[in-house]
Amino acid sequence: MIDNLRVNGDRLWDSLMEMAQIGATEKGGVCRLALSDFDREGRDLLSKWAEEQGCNCLIDPMGNMFFRRPGRSTDGKPVGSGSHLDTQPTGGKFDGVYGVLAALEVIRTLNDAKIETKLPIEMVVWTNEEGARFPPSMIGSAVYAGAYDLEYGHSRSDHDGKTIRGELERIGYLGNPLPSDHGFSAFFEAHIEQGPILEELDKPIGVVSAVQGVQWYDVNVIGEESHAGPTPMANRRDALRGAGKLIENLYAIAENCGFAARLTVGEFRTYPGSRNTVPSRVEFTIDMRHPDGKTFDDLHDQVIAAVKRFNRESKLDADITRIFSSPPIEFDRGCIDVVRKSAEKCGYSTNEMFSGAGHDSVYISKVAPTSMIFIPCDGGISHNETENTSSEFCAAGANTLLHSMIAKAEVIM
Amino acid sequence: MIDNLRVNGDRLWDSLMEMAQIGATEKGGVCRLALSDFDREGRDLLSKWAEEQGCNCLIDPMGNMFFRRPGRSTDGKPVGSGSHLDTQPTGGKFDGVYGVLAALEVIRTLNDAKIETKLPIEMVVWTNEEGARFPPSMIGSAVYAGAYDLEYGHSRSDHDGKTIRGELERIGYLGNPLPSDHGFSAFFEAHIEQGPILEELDKPIGVVSAVQGVQWYDVNVIGEESHAGPTPMANRRDALRGAGKLIENLYAIAENCGFAARLTVGEFRTYPGSRNTVPSRVEFTIDMRHPDGKTFDDLHDQVIAAVKRFNRESKLDADITRIFSSPPIEFDRGCIDVVRKSAEKCGYSTNEMFSGAGHDSVYISKVAPTSMIFIPCDGGISHNETENTSSEFCAAGANTLLHSMIAKAEVIM
Repeated sequence: MIDNLRVNGDRLWDSLMEMAQIGATEKGGVCRLALSDFDREGRDLLSKWAEEQGCNCLIDPMGNMFFRRPGRSTDGKPVGSGSHLDTQPTGGKFDGVYGVLAALEVIRTLNDAKIETKLPIEMVVWTNEEGARFPPSMIGSAVYAGAYDLEYGHSRSDHDGKTIRGELERIGYLGNPLPSDHGFSAFFEAHIEQGPILEELDKPIGVVSAVQGVQWYDVNVIGEESHAGPTPMANRRDALRGAGKLIENLYAIAENCGFAARLTVGEFRTYPGSRNTVPSRVEFTIDMRHPDGKTFDDLHDQVIAAVKRFNRESKLDADITRIFSSPPIEFDRGCIDVVRKSAEKCGYSTNEMFSGAGHDSVYISKVAPTSMIFIPCDGGISHNETENTSSEFCAAGANTLLHSMIAKAEVIM
Repeated sequence: MIDNLRVNGDRLWDSLMEMAQIGATEKGGVCRLALSDFDREGRDLLSKWAEEQGCNCLIDPMGNMFFRRPGRSTDGKPVGSGSHLDTQPTGGKFDGVYGVLAALEVIRTLNDAKIETKLPIEMVVWTNEEGARFPPSMIGSAVYAGAYDLEYGHSRSDHDGKTIRGELERIGYLGNPLPSDHGFSAFFEAHIEQGPILEELDKPIGVVSAVQGVQWYDVNVIGEESHAGPTPMANRRDALRGAGKLIENLYAIAENCGFAARLTVGEFRTYPGSRNTVPSRVEFTIDMRHPDGKTFDDLHDQVIAAVKRFNRESKLDADITRIFSSPPIEFDRGCIDVVRKSAEKCGYSTNEMFSGAGHDSVYISKVAPTSMIFIPCDGGISHNETENTSSEFCAAGANTLLHSMIAKAEVIM
């Protein structure tokens, strides 16, 4: 009978659409940057919903939120699930928030069916997963898992110099240290795939067994400012033109490394930024990914070598700093198997795969048995205001999450 | 005896250094953007100096300032000279302001020597020559010369949406229409060369006979936003990568067109500007120049064709808009000859040349006989905080200006 338990897909969809109003953009997306006023509104709404389900809430010093549905056991660690509420500047309705509201729907479904579990169930919101406002990304879960200390997390700042600690205080979500024995028996994160594979394979559930490594770099290219009119082309030290050539070399490195390699230049700033002045300086970012540890390191070496070669061969000076590195990781085999069996129990076909994007689960996997559940998104498009998926896929992921969580939390018959 | 009259080079240099304190940058440059608080301070200081010399001042509706030293004739039009006080965001101490203070030094020298001229002498400050804050450049002189109407000039806005009219009001320099018969018998503009030629030839005075044509464009490249991790390189429509390739093709057009052609991409903005999102859109500017009218038009055709070819051959969509076009112009032969003779009279060797940069004199040449006087600047470097020249070159240019102006204004013996 428990095997036939299903979430309420319409209710889940309605909650997703209601949350998407907070920070809604004209083009149908969402801009709910970490620790903005919209982030506060989203947190407030979720807290209200969780309170209606009888959950109590803990907030930690990074603003991570833990909503607990008690279990019968008083000493067992909870089975956790969650993701993030913050979005990209022009983000969509599902990235992150789907994983949070799928966990809420699990709690609502258990409450409706009056099912008691041995272990508590905990819904979690991790702060600043995107890193769009405060680099690096996943800083909330990273501090939780001990990968960074709290002082580092608090001192991360945005382009205006505002810090995470200051913004947490401002929006009223600076919490207290968790009990020292806080932890998870198991952790699951439901998420849209953010890639085209499930859609191409026509499978509703991705069983995520590993996550690509991610490295972030900041690059500066220094040339010389001069007037756009009198300065002959051959006399110039044009930082923008040089940066363009360097970047094309970097893309080629990734392309020569096979299907799984990814390289992106997402930010690019030019100084002084005047239309009749040859640029003296360019700052740009690199995001580079690969699922294999050895190739991941090799790509790093190639990028550093490309910058050195650029400095030898051009009249410009470039420097590169790696500001973040998260090596490829593999999830817990036990959790992976529970996800696959839960999906099959509900009648969904599955595909075992790696994640191209980083997720909070990367950090949580260091302190608890963890895996992830992917659902397809339209055209594999994400980090985009048109990001979309279907109510059916959302329900399939939530049903898979429901049965994964109760398998680990143990239903009291 | 008049032939032996010389300006006070030390006084001119001291005034240059005093004005350079207004908006001074840490690196020794100046940031005095048009109609900023610093621009107001600069105008106030100049007004005080001009008042000390007995000049009266008219301010027109574009904030252009006209300081007159009366002549004996009550109906003759003045001989004018001047340039601009606004700078690039990271500009130098000489670009523009030298031409203004050289004219002031001419007035001071005539006053000291108690020399009366038949025609009035007029020192002029043109508003927003750089166009760095309010594109297009040279808008103050352009409206004066009737190339744009006042409404267009007033409505130009900066990145924050502030208009020229609003900022003129704010800083107290919104003036009244000039008398309908205002004009110049002749106009001279002294300026640093902003290029390397005089320094390479070791000549202190450039006799400027012509100005390169300038065309400004805005380009948008549209791709598709997607997540930096899951999206395979081959599936991307990366606006930044596409823009880089397009820009390299544009540089090649200018390089294949010979020494006199110039092409600069000075502004480049990426959207959404997040390090883990493939850019969906890039906006960049083009500044393109050539001294020959036919080649100038041909370069325009080639740039438009390159954008069309890009749209056929890439998965991206680019559009290009020409927002400004100032064809090559030739200065008045009479004024050119006066400048050469005046320099020779003072013992300076000269080089007849074209200007690579646009100047207010381009517009003034449409309504009055006009030419320009160049002095060398270190390394040809300009639009740069390290922009520099010598007190001797400044004096040489001012002496050439002095004798050019009194040749046209006629000394009363």
